[in-house]
Amino acid sequence: MKTVKDYIRTIEDFPKEGIKFRDVTTLFSDPQGLRLTIDQMTQPFAGQKIDKVIGIEARGFILAGAIAHQLSAGFAPIRKKGKLPGPTISQGYTLEYGEAIVEIHRDAIEAGERMLLVDDLLATGGTVAASISLVERLGGDIVACSFIVDLPDLGGRKLLETMGMTLNVLCTFND
Amino acid sequence: MKTVKDYIRTIEDFPKEGIKFRDVTTLFSDPQGLRLTIDQMTQPFAGQKIDKVIGIEARGFILAGAIAHQLSAGFAPIRKKGKLPGPTISQGYTLEYGEAIVEIHRDAIEAGERMLLVDDLLATGGTVAASISLVERLGGDIVACSFIVDLPDLGGRKLLETMGMTLNVLCTFND
Repeated sequence: MKTVKDYIRTIEDFPKEGIKFRDVTTLFSDPQGLRLTIDQMTQPFAGQKIDKVIGIEARGFILAGAIAHQLSAGFAPIRKKGKLPGPTISQGYTLEYGEAIVEIHRDAIEAGERMLLVDDLLATGGTVAASISLVERLGGDIVACSFIVDLPDLGGRKLLETMGMTLNVLCTFND
Repeated sequence: MKTVKDYIRTIEDFPKEGIKFRDVTTLFSDPQGLRLTIDQMTQPFAGQKIDKVIGIEARGFILAGAIAHQLSAGFAPIRKKGKLPGPTISQGYTLEYGEAIVEIHRDAIEAGERMLLVDDLLATGGTVAASISLVERLGGDIVACSFIVDLPDLGGRKLLETMGMTLNVLCTFND
């Protein structure tokens, strides 16, 4: 039987030369691949009284809406600067070249709510760490961060563990 | 009992003065609101053998992943130019000021597959019409286009009906 990892396509030199891009669109386009993914990202949290699932723009949205629906939780988005229409708080972080900003609605979380943070892939962890900061500034209690793919060589796993996060990942690529 | 429309928040003057922005984040953040939304967008298509649900970046992703999972279908994304890693086809369309381009992976659809196209809101229909064109160029058979919100005064409904599309909308705002 195919595993989640079997459905993931690797595209060489995207978005730039030397990068092996792990493409989850081939996982999502297969009904069985999508079902495996959502089931494996939902099951560990089924008894954990998750109040909201946070999706990180954009691929995290594909997962987080489905996982929230399965867990009978709410969904809240973390988006790039200027995309959310209501009052927000912002968090900057550094990229390889330059800087980026992510935002969340101020009223997206009530203090003490139990949150699950979701994205497709954990690489350097920069966007995720900024997202964790946003959730925690609003008083959210992060139960876990969940990803389809972990690229441990890029340091994100170590960074999030240093921050005290519990991680759930479905598969790992070591090159 | 609250309806889907009751959960939607209106934000004045976003993204610019004079626009009433219909904000679905308040609908998604409530577990009951999210459940109603996904259920009402899924039920009309439960017996219709949908092969794939197409989500339009970015808010369409939140819905399309969950709907695809519920229908035991696959999911495929339509994204802004340059975001998809594999070979794509592109479609340009005009905005109020300037132009935009959307893309889909060439291998996202097999000819004859039955598709459901999903986004949060139908306004002028420009992005949706370009998305329909992409799906049809790949041979996809569009069973319906489904939206949470219809703003019929902006002309999208009329445009899509002229194109022969079947529409499913959960609520309408007439101002």
